[in-house]
Amino acid sequence: MTDQDKALDYLRSHHAVYIDELTEFLSLPSISALTEHKEAVQAAALWLQQRLAQAGIPVSRIDHTAGHPVVYAETVQDPAKPTVLVYGHYDVQPVDPLDQWTHPPFSPTVVDNVLYARGSSDDKGQVYMQVVAAESWIKTGELPVNLKFLFEGEEEIGSIHLDEYIRTHQEQLQADVAVISDTPMFAQDVPAVCYGLRGLAAMEIHVEGPRQDLHSGVFGGAVENPAHALAKIIASLHDAQGRVTVPGFYDGVSPLTGQERRNFAALPFDEADFLHSTGSPELYGEAGFTTLERIWARPTLEVNGMWSGFIGEGRKTIIPQSAHAKLSCRLVPHQDPAAIADQVAAFIESQCPPTVRLRIERGEGAPGSITPLDHPATQAAVRAIRDIYHREAAYIRMGGSIPVVVTFETVLHMPTVLLGFALPDENFHAPNEHFHLENFYKGAETVATLWNYLGTPATS
Amino acid sequence: MTDQDKALDYLRSHHAVYIDELTEFLSLPSISALTEHKEAVQAAALWLQQRLAQAGIPVSRIDHTAGHPVVYAETVQDPAKPTVLVYGHYDVQPVDPLDQWTHPPFSPTVVDNVLYARGSSDDKGQVYMQVVAAESWIKTGELPVNLKFLFEGEEEIGSIHLDEYIRTHQEQLQADVAVISDTPMFAQDVPAVCYGLRGLAAMEIHVEGPRQDLHSGVFGGAVENPAHALAKIIASLHDAQGRVTVPGFYDGVSPLTGQERRNFAALPFDEADFLHSTGSPELYGEAGFTTLERIWARPTLEVNGMWSGFIGEGRKTIIPQSAHAKLSCRLVPHQDPAAIADQVAAFIESQCPPTVRLRIERGEGAPGSITPLDHPATQAAVRAIRDIYHREAAYIRMGGSIPVVVTFETVLHMPTVLLGFALPDENFHAPNEHFHLENFYKGAETVATLWNYLGTPATS
Repeated sequence: MTDQDKALDYLRSHHAVYIDELTEFLSLPSISALTEHKEAVQAAALWLQQRLAQAGIPVSRIDHTAGHPVVYAETVQDPAKPTVLVYGHYDVQPVDPLDQWTHPPFSPTVVDNVLYARGSSDDKGQVYMQVVAAESWIKTGELPVNLKFLFEGEEEIGSIHLDEYIRTHQEQLQADVAVISDTPMFAQDVPAVCYGLRGLAAMEIHVEGPRQDLHSGVFGGAVENPAHALAKIIASLHDAQGRVTVPGFYDGVSPLTGQERRNFAALPFDEADFLHSTGSPELYGEAGFTTLERIWARPTLEVNGMWSGFIGEGRKTIIPQSAHAKLSCRLVPHQDPAAIADQVAAFIESQCPPTVRLRIERGEGAPGSITPLDHPATQAAVRAIRDIYHREAAYIRMGGSIPVVVTFETVLHMPTVLLGFALPDENFHAPNEHFHLENFYKGAETVATLWNYLGTPATS
Repeated sequence: MTDQDKALDYLRSHHAVYIDELTEFLSLPSISALTEHKEAVQAAALWLQQRLAQAGIPVSRIDHTAGHPVVYAETVQDPAKPTVLVYGHYDVQPVDPLDQWTHPPFSPTVVDNVLYARGSSDDKGQVYMQVVAAESWIKTGELPVNLKFLFEGEEEIGSIHLDEYIRTHQEQLQADVAVISDTPMFAQDVPAVCYGLRGLAAMEIHVEGPRQDLHSGVFGGAVENPAHALAKIIASLHDAQGRVTVPGFYDGVSPLTGQERRNFAALPFDEADFLHSTGSPELYGEAGFTTLERIWARPTLEVNGMWSGFIGEGRKTIIPQSAHAKLSCRLVPHQDPAAIADQVAAFIESQCPPTVRLRIERGEGAPGSITPLDHPATQAAVRAIRDIYHREAAYIRMGGSIPVVVTFETVLHMPTVLLGFALPDENFHAPNEHFHLENFYKGAETVATLWNYLGTPATS
């Protein structure tokens, strides 16, 4: 029995323990966006730090930041071996609308080998998977690589203190490659290595009219309604072909290569299934691009939330005092988030009438990223997938944002392998988030196999 | 000392009692729109019924309806005297945003002879004013008219059961004229008789896209965002000249006469003061009309509330499942509310793309109304104002809606005198609603004087 077989056997004989422990971890409501959940975020950090120690990793600690803490751990046994930096996040998205959850979001529930809970797939389940993959080597022999673990608690609020942490801990974090499991497989039975991510530029816009809500009988017709002004602004952001109208918005976009368009077109992508997974009556998007191109390689501008006036039960005949929207852009390589935010803000200002007041609050931003397909670590991941899933990995891009990939590139000069085991329809950021346990188990085995290939590079 | 002087003396010697009693009445949070306030609405009805009995009115009772109750009272001592039907409402608007109230809405507070409370001016303060005006005659002698009181608890939710009550109690409610104090004076020291009201047509629109909120990274660019679709619909409802774009919307509108436009233009209306009272940066409205024409005699379409997606603290990068708006139109005589609602709904349907689903929920409707200026009851009100305020009454219209005026006209064949003592900037329907006590006292005296003129018509 090889050392790798021992590690894989260890993983295969501990499924019940993993479910119990994952249930504990997912029960901690570590919503980073809500100040009243601060203690739960800290509890999740502590749980994770203790679990890393329990796995036999000699260094594990909680590093405080100006926000939620970083959990850092390392096992560096042999300087001659390659060093891998594993990144993940133990914070989760908010859970409203709560009434749409079939099971309470922080009461993890297994139904038909699927685990339902906020954070199950994004990203606490995958963080825990990395820990047990390392443990399987430590408990049965010796890790083929040095491992460093960097788990943050602010990914869902834009990783606002992570860049500073990385800049001030560059020596500690030095490694040959970063590995992140926070991306989905292409589909069930289609494991994938992801080589491109979108970035983000976010903002809130506040339109204010009268000093307070006004009676629409007494004042209606004589003052601008801020909800109308906001609606006109939002309506002006896209044209009839689904393109963002903001001048300069597409200037920095790298065009898709012919090879990429052919790769995407060759994937087993079923438009009808995709449509069904959304529940929308029809697909929609920017003219001239396929659905995969739209979500992976084209920038977008979306309203994430919008509110104005009386939204309770019944009716209140008012002109609202104000109207508000949360906006975010998904960006592709090589759009500059600050420049995009400037362009969007300037366009919104140009669309706002003088009959209301406008205030724009800038949110965080991060550029998109691209990782080379031919990097040895990428190829090691492809081999590990082949061993465990008995399939060729798909090369995909992803529409979401992992800003830390950009920081690893620019500050630590390190490539990143994106090797995730969630499925695209597992409701990240939505009610009823879940994780298929089959992919949790196979994911842990694939990661344990990846350590082996990274430690003993292929000769062929 | 004449009988009228006795009544007025009585009113002038009871100011302290009135403040105490009004404080009791206004402390009952009779918000008709909120089901959890049902008992408070009933408590306000009971308070009012008991106060009518205490005033010496022989018949007073609570009449149940399918919704909130009607308080009915009458004193019919002499069939030879004219009979007046007094209408008012003891329900109030919701109070949110609660954090904008300087004093709690249901803890009435007097500052500088101004009484702050939800319902102080709209309309519990004016309802109570009618009761004490009647009491002043009863306690000092004999009422010059027969009085019937019809006080409802559903005015702020569209008087949904009042029409049925009136239709099934026509004999009970027979009178020569109706008097309502639910309109404002034109300004401080400019008492007014109001001869025109706007009507209302309300609806909610619901735009639904995906089955649930979607991750904007995973799906962004491939499905229509319901907030964008709603914004485009709302933006399409007005043109650049402030006109409603719905085909047919203005078809039934009676044009303003030259005399009316001259009357309005002659009123002491200060645009800068009006603008200041709103707090908006500029006035705005339909091209070709003055501010008074816009708010009194032109129909409008307003968003009263709008909501979509994530509106809590922080950020959630989603495509919202749905987007919603509460709309209402203010209508002028002779627009048909049902036809307008049909036209607006049809236009919204025509503007909605096939990439989302649309549902329109009809709310209540009521036409606008006009009352003759030369009716003897109108002229009696003008004389009463002259006696108490020592000024000529202004003839004004009003932008708000009092649907019962239309029902009195069509079902009871009775004209209505609109004689109100609130001021336009007393924040009806908004935080910090208030009522100037000087106008409460003078209003009660004017109403007591009106009873006298109605009972003993002028010979000149």
